[in-house]
Amino acid sequence: MYTVNERLAWRYATKKFDATKSVLAEKLERIIEAVRLAPTTSGLQPFELFVVSNAAIRAKIRAVAWNQTQITDCSHLLVFAAWDDITSDRVNMMFDLTNEVRGFKNEGWENYREMLLGIVGERGTHGNYEVAARQAYIGLGIALIAAAFEEVDATPMEGFDPVALDDILDLKSKNLRSVVLLPLGYRADEGDWAVNLKKVRRDRESFVTEIM
Amino acid sequence: MYTVNERLAWRYATKKFDATKSVLAEKLERIIEAVRLAPTTSGLQPFELFVVSNAAIRAKIRAVAWNQTQITDCSHLLVFAAWDDITSDRVNMMFDLTNEVRGFKNEGWENYREMLLGIVGERGTHGNYEVAARQAYIGLGIALIAAAFEEVDATPMEGFDPVALDDILDLKSKNLRSVVLLPLGYRADEGDWAVNLKKVRRDRESFVTEIM
Repeated sequence: MYTVNERLAWRYATKKFDATKSVLAEKLERIIEAVRLAPTTSGLQPFELFVVSNAAIRAKIRAVAWNQTQITDCSHLLVFAAWDDITSDRVNMMFDLTNEVRGFKNEGWENYREMLLGIVGERGTHGNYEVAARQAYIGLGIALIAAAFEEVDATPMEGFDPVALDDILDLKSKNLRSVVLLPLGYRADEGDWAVNLKKVRRDRESFVTEIM
Repeated sequence: MYTVNERLAWRYATKKFDATKSVLAEKLERIIEAVRLAPTTSGLQPFELFVVSNAAIRAKIRAVAWNQTQITDCSHLLVFAAWDDITSDRVNMMFDLTNEVRGFKNEGWENYREMLLGIVGERGTHGNYEVAARQAYIGLGIALIAAAFEEVDATPMEGFDPVALDDILDLKSKNLRSVVLLPLGYRADEGDWAVNLKKVRRDRESFVTEIM
């Protein structure tokens, strides 16, 4: 069993997947489950996950994503789609679910609901969408580690036309907006120019400040 | 050794830390290192990490963060601070570092640099900040898992006044903006109302859509 940092050292943004290799269903499920378990602001889970294996749909997505071959060569394409707004209905849905799961409806929690409804109302649609999009990135970070522990390669991708992708997946009718992609699969034996490159990160001194 | 999903099930947003317990330096270092290794858009790492142990500074931060006790009771407070803009200088700094680490300066990479400089110039300060803030959340997601593997408790927190916090840490002069906090430490033996509550997440059916 590896450590988190060993798995982070192993992973890289795969440039060429082996299109003949598929991720086992049980591995895929564990990665999906990790994303579902990701913590989010006020427990809202303000995003959804799309798992695209359909070849025709993936070809369409590739066409609006700089023709990046990972989208069609990977085993499964994850699409993280954030709520386009944090509406009262959505807040209430999650608070009601919490009451159901935890079997309570206490005063403190109801006061928190009211306060949160006030905050999201005041923040407005775009601000709420930005908050939701950030939460999707918590899920992305967790998916990256979960995939690495399964020895599944993954490539975080922001290089696509989100409006066109929303059209392809009919996200607008679901009040969602695509924010980031994560192809999952297995690196090709040959042809990936990035596989042997040294990882580039700023050193600890220029990345971390300790205030003691 | 546990699995990622076992560690995700173990963790929760700790409400009360044991102020007498400190996270060992080696554990803290591994968590910091995981954040440093987090992948980010175009490899820019457009955020920095502040590790605050100073008691007086933490008291000041608590005062602008709804008086949440985790900020002063935790062992170390992580502050994720995003670049306030993705400037040409910052893009060039990371591309130059890449060339240095990888020992190359190839034409494709230089074309990519030019393209990226065009994109960030067009997107403008606020859009660039939002992109940077999202990347900080990849680091947050990874920090949460890294902490859980160290059996260190952690509480992601957005409930604070970012402008006031930027003042306290003098982030403006560094062209940074605080986006999210992560107190690290150990849950108190008593007094945490959240420790035994069932985790609330939407079921797979309402969170995941498969397109096959």
